[in-house]
Amino acid sequence: MTAAAGMDSPSSSPVRGTPLLKDELDIVIPTIRNLDFLEMWRPFFQPYHLIVVQDGDPSKTIRVPEGFDYELYNRNDIKRILGPRAACISFKDSACRCFGYMVSKKKYIYTIDDDCFVAKDPSGKEINALEQHISNLLTPSTPYFFNTLYDPYREGTDFVRGYPFSLREGTPTVVSHGLWLNIPDYDAPTQLVKPRERNTRYVDAVLTIPRGTLFPMCGMNLAFDRELIGSAMYFGLMGDGQPIGRYDDMWAGWCIKVICDHLRLGVKTGLPYIWHSKASNPFVNFKKEYKGIFWQEELIPFFQTVVLPKDCTTVHKCYIELSKQVREKLGKIDPYFTKLADAMVTWIEAWEELNPPGTAAEVVNGSSNGK
Amino acid sequence: MTAAAGMDSPSSSPVRGTPLLKDELDIVIPTIRNLDFLEMWRPFFQPYHLIVVQDGDPSKTIRVPEGFDYELYNRNDIKRILGPRAACISFKDSACRCFGYMVSKKKYIYTIDDDCFVAKDPSGKEINALEQHISNLLTPSTPYFFNTLYDPYREGTDFVRGYPFSLREGTPTVVSHGLWLNIPDYDAPTQLVKPRERNTRYVDAVLTIPRGTLFPMCGMNLAFDRELIGSAMYFGLMGDGQPIGRYDDMWAGWCIKVICDHLRLGVKTGLPYIWHSKASNPFVNFKKEYKGIFWQEELIPFFQTVVLPKDCTTVHKCYIELSKQVREKLGKIDPYFTKLADAMVTWIEAWEELNPPGTAAEVVNGSSNGK
Repeated sequence: MTAAAGMDSPSSSPVRGTPLLKDELDIVIPTIRNLDFLEMWRPFFQPYHLIVVQDGDPSKTIRVPEGFDYELYNRNDIKRILGPRAACISFKDSACRCFGYMVSKKKYIYTIDDDCFVAKDPSGKEINALEQHISNLLTPSTPYFFNTLYDPYREGTDFVRGYPFSLREGTPTVVSHGLWLNIPDYDAPTQLVKPRERNTRYVDAVLTIPRGTLFPMCGMNLAFDRELIGSAMYFGLMGDGQPIGRYDDMWAGWCIKVICDHLRLGVKTGLPYIWHSKASNPFVNFKKEYKGIFWQEELIPFFQTVVLPKDCTTVHKCYIELSKQVREKLGKIDPYFTKLADAMVTWIEAWEELNPPGTAAEVVNGSSNGK
Repeated sequence: MTAAAGMDSPSSSPVRGTPLLKDELDIVIPTIRNLDFLEMWRPFFQPYHLIVVQDGDPSKTIRVPEGFDYELYNRNDIKRILGPRAACISFKDSACRCFGYMVSKKKYIYTIDDDCFVAKDPSGKEINALEQHISNLLTPSTPYFFNTLYDPYREGTDFVRGYPFSLREGTPTVVSHGLWLNIPDYDAPTQLVKPRERNTRYVDAVLTIPRGTLFPMCGMNLAFDRELIGSAMYFGLMGDGQPIGRYDDMWAGWCIKVICDHLRLGVKTGLPYIWHSKASNPFVNFKKEYKGIFWQEELIPFFQTVVLPKDCTTVHKCYIELSKQVREKLGKIDPYFTKLADAMVTWIEAWEELNPPGTAAEVVNGSSNGK
């Protein structure tokens, strides 16, 4: 652990009273540069503990603005803590952020990219993204039937006519996927074709991704329940020495979604927005994504048809089973997937070592509902 | 047919140039009163042909504001046209509107309740609901994978990173389900519990209901492709002489959704909003909905697990098959469902008689995708 600083003057925060989940949530930030972007987030983030995962050259010093309570890990720290298992943590890729999920001891994680700033809602008010994520996580999801007025737990709305009453308790929410104003999260081909497209549309909604439906999970502005789903939130092998990049969050999203569907846990998307300031270079991205663009055509049908057996009653068991199916069914596409299946096992072993069983919640698989 | 009037001065419409699908869309309105609400819709509806289905006492005269091109059917007309098959059309219930779908000769239908007015968007501009519905219907749906920036075909947005390219052509959209500002579409228990709740939130989004997910379809503000899905848009047996009401649109929604999923057709929900002015009486509604509140608990699992065989390659075949499964599996719940299964067959026979085969598009069932 390279550095740690005390926290000061949380009372300067505009957040009313005690910040929500102050002692139960860590903010994980992968970075290669000084974290000046935190200045803008100070009113919202300062009460929380930060875990900074430094990517790339470990000899470089990352400056964190004063007054933030943080711990910082560079590649040397990761190697020291995980030993040979450090190989499962990507290098020179923001996928390294998942190391932060592993070393956290909190129930919840919020992860954000360092080119993301505070967005404003249509009334001009600065959006407290974290507060919205927490609200998303603390209210149930509704994956078994679609509510046409969106999140029924939001104030001023409810379940509409025709919504079965037995489904209105919902299911625990474990992932809150936030969106981006300004630079949308496009792939390289779309960036190349539409270099000037900006997302200016504020959609005032949160919704549950229905059971059986996959979605493209972006890691830029993402919160989750680390205790309930953290051990499946592995961002894979990307970057240095790997044939692919920019699929780290996608991979994690596909894995967690099939596990959530199996374990009857919920995933929400929509609010909150952050302001994404800087599009990454489309040519560099094109190179990173090249193989992924072909592979995803086979990955999606794979994840759409994954069946986890009934005895997979915990995220751990689901993840091990998923790694077997990845090896068996995707290993044929490219040797990369065999390596990835190995890394999935390494990840879960490392997770167990740092988070011994008994510390995490054991989720019991309910009976299967519908299709 | 009781009345018909010429159309005048469409040039006074604020819609630029020729109204979209002017000769390919009918507006169906079920009513028991004078259609004064049309005055507010004049700029948007006047260029189109209206089909008014008069509910209740046929001796009553329904006044339609001048300048609208319409045909009006009362109960006597329905009996004359359908003979004994008229029994499948509900009486003293807005479910009678589906007779209008049957006698239309157009490709598209828009149906709206007579207590729905023109809503305004957040900028204060009056919303041309029909124009938005047409745009929803004329752009594809994306039921096989969720796009986090909502409708990817809308201007200023696209498919996000991680969205498989092979799925970006989408699938034909056959239903556009619009929403309601002011009075939300709540069931009687929710109306009773929250008498003052109003929907004031304008969610600026259209999205596809994913494959395998059911939703509560409301008939208040609904457009669909009559040629492709009309013969399944049967609003069931409600109202006079039936043990249930206010489930007409729900029933149709569950039927069309499983058929759309099977035939690889798309259903969208979201924009446009209308202004719903008047909540129906919650006590009256409670009586109508009473049995439905129990029955829906069994209907949803039924529809969630319906499997239509591969040889059901047209909506007609799907609907006949569905009627068989309703009879077999729901008939046990209550004799009403046996009667409903009979009515489904009667409906489809009547549809065929008025719309002889060869006039409607034959949809060929594609290969199955994912789960």
